[in-house]
Amino acid sequence: MGGYVPGEQPQTAGFVKLNTNENPYPPSPAVAKAVEEVLRRGLQKYPDPMAGAFRRQAAEVLGLHPDWILCGNGSDDILTIVTRAFVGQGQMLRLPYPSYILYKSLAQIQGARSEEIHFERDWSLGAAFGRPAADLRLVFLPNPNSPSGTMVSREAILDLAERLPCPLLIDEAYGDFAEFNCLDLPAGNEKILVSRSFSKSYALAGLRFGFVVAQPRMIEQLVKVKDSYNCDALSIAAATAAVADQAWLKENRARILATRKRLTEGMRALGFEVVQSQANFTWNVHPSQPAKPLYERLKQQRVLVRYMDYPGWGDGLRISVGTDQEVQTCLDHLRGIL
Amino acid sequence: MGGYVPGEQPQTAGFVKLNTNENPYPPSPAVAKAVEEVLRRGLQKYPDPMAGAFRRQAAEVLGLHPDWILCGNGSDDILTIVTRAFVGQGQMLRLPYPSYILYKSLAQIQGARSEEIHFERDWSLGAAFGRPAADLRLVFLPNPNSPSGTMVSREAILDLAERLPCPLLIDEAYGDFAEFNCLDLPAGNEKILVSRSFSKSYALAGLRFGFVVAQPRMIEQLVKVKDSYNCDALSIAAATAAVADQAWLKENRARILATRKRLTEGMRALGFEVVQSQANFTWNVHPSQPAKPLYERLKQQRVLVRYMDYPGWGDGLRISVGTDQEVQTCLDHLRGIL
Repeated sequence: MGGYVPGEQPQTAGFVKLNTNENPYPPSPAVAKAVEEVLRRGLQKYPDPMAGAFRRQAAEVLGLHPDWILCGNGSDDILTIVTRAFVGQGQMLRLPYPSYILYKSLAQIQGARSEEIHFERDWSLGAAFGRPAADLRLVFLPNPNSPSGTMVSREAILDLAERLPCPLLIDEAYGDFAEFNCLDLPAGNEKILVSRSFSKSYALAGLRFGFVVAQPRMIEQLVKVKDSYNCDALSIAAATAAVADQAWLKENRARILATRKRLTEGMRALGFEVVQSQANFTWNVHPSQPAKPLYERLKQQRVLVRYMDYPGWGDGLRISVGTDQEVQTCLDHLRGIL
Repeated sequence: MGGYVPGEQPQTAGFVKLNTNENPYPPSPAVAKAVEEVLRRGLQKYPDPMAGAFRRQAAEVLGLHPDWILCGNGSDDILTIVTRAFVGQGQMLRLPYPSYILYKSLAQIQGARSEEIHFERDWSLGAAFGRPAADLRLVFLPNPNSPSGTMVSREAILDLAERLPCPLLIDEAYGDFAEFNCLDLPAGNEKILVSRSFSKSYALAGLRFGFVVAQPRMIEQLVKVKDSYNCDALSIAAATAAVADQAWLKENRARILATRKRLTEGMRALGFEVVQSQANFTWNVHPSQPAKPLYERLKQQRVLVRYMDYPGWGDGLRISVGTDQEVQTCLDHLRGIL
């Protein structure tokens, strides 16, 4: 088993880092204040195992009841919890292809099988994705998807959930950058779960915090599988402060979307095919220039983008939406290389 | 499946809390400084997936090479990683009884079987604990043990590792309070792994940080199973600062050991049988007074201790070593109840 390999995280400074979809701006100032308050109270006691303060605050902001929310040490922890709760050894997990590489690794770690259903060329999903199958126990659907930034409609998701015999997790790690989301769908169908991350839209990748929304009966199943104290006192306080500051989120989102437009147009002007993204990155394929040398040349010039090669599908560059200046630097270097 | 239920964590103040083995003193002042430094740098980037700064610092303090260390989101995360790496569905995990309740829960979550080998009445382990068995894939041995605070000797552990056909994880969550430890044993036998927690001796239960020491080839296996970013940037910096401050650890340990002596003698004076503990708690059984009503009466008086009932073994009170004053309050209340 190879294990999942995350994007490069250079431990030296000086890179324009557009490879792991981090937010280029610092988080809400309320985050540091909340962390400092916990430091004053001390760290010697265990945190609240259920992160009640976050659940109450997020429930208020999202119009949910706290019982519908479970917190994780990053949304990767949520994906792990959901996999362990529903998929046994030898059973099946379904995912679209190409999408988040971790899903398949989670199946492998679990000793489970995984079935990859290819996206259509227009990034829609064919009927096979919703087809019942023996031993199928869980379906992952990132929405927006990575690397494309494309989305499957709410109607298509409801239809999938109706047809599937098992839970369907909608991974909305990039949901805050999109035009719509599915946070209200679990209320109408207990098979639907929706996960969220604080790494992208809340600029808290360093913190590790995510959550899942599902019907309380589902949440109870997940609680049995999670580490008792999976979220620490600092991250609970920080995420609670972050989710309370929706004005910050709105402003940050607007900046990212403006730069995403600039990046998309700039890449298209350089001759790349760029599908319209609803996330904080774009997926870029050049009709004549191979992607890998472009990635390598950019890296030599200390601009890190993500080179993705999906066997049986193709390769390309996934470029995160940085600041306007970072994106301009990337575009300028590419212009020099092409 | 019931899932593991941690000790009570009242979210209201006013309890003398001696039920989950937290350190009663705040952590090293270096911890807050390190966290504040990360806050200044910002949280928007992902943390170092391998927590290199901690590995280098801990390696220096412990006289190891960084490659021998893997960090976890609490030592519970380490126990989960080790279980997932070595134990498949239907395979066997062995643990002593009574010991840390989580071990059995980890086997259940994994769909694995678990085999509990009873401690002898003097808290030693019989030959059955080291006996090879079909499908045996992992053995957990907490040392010091909970709830007893007792230890198995280094010689006995080396003998166990020789005889066992699978990895043996020595859980040293309480190792810093003991007279000896096994941190050097992995060097001589690749089957031995030693895990450590920052929740007890470093007074950082709120932080979630732990690590495991094993041969690099073992560590590589574990890396494939862990969440990519299982430790956040704040906890990595905090734990690095904490482990660097060995003067703090030494002083804190001395205070805890002095109060442990006071607690042990106080409980014995009240008629309890108290086995000599090498951890930051004691295990207390009264020859005539049932333990559960004592726990309940203490709780009414806002003193929380841990009532433990081990079917087929017996019950008792596990009392954490708090401050001198907290321990005195507990003893005074018990004197009034008995």
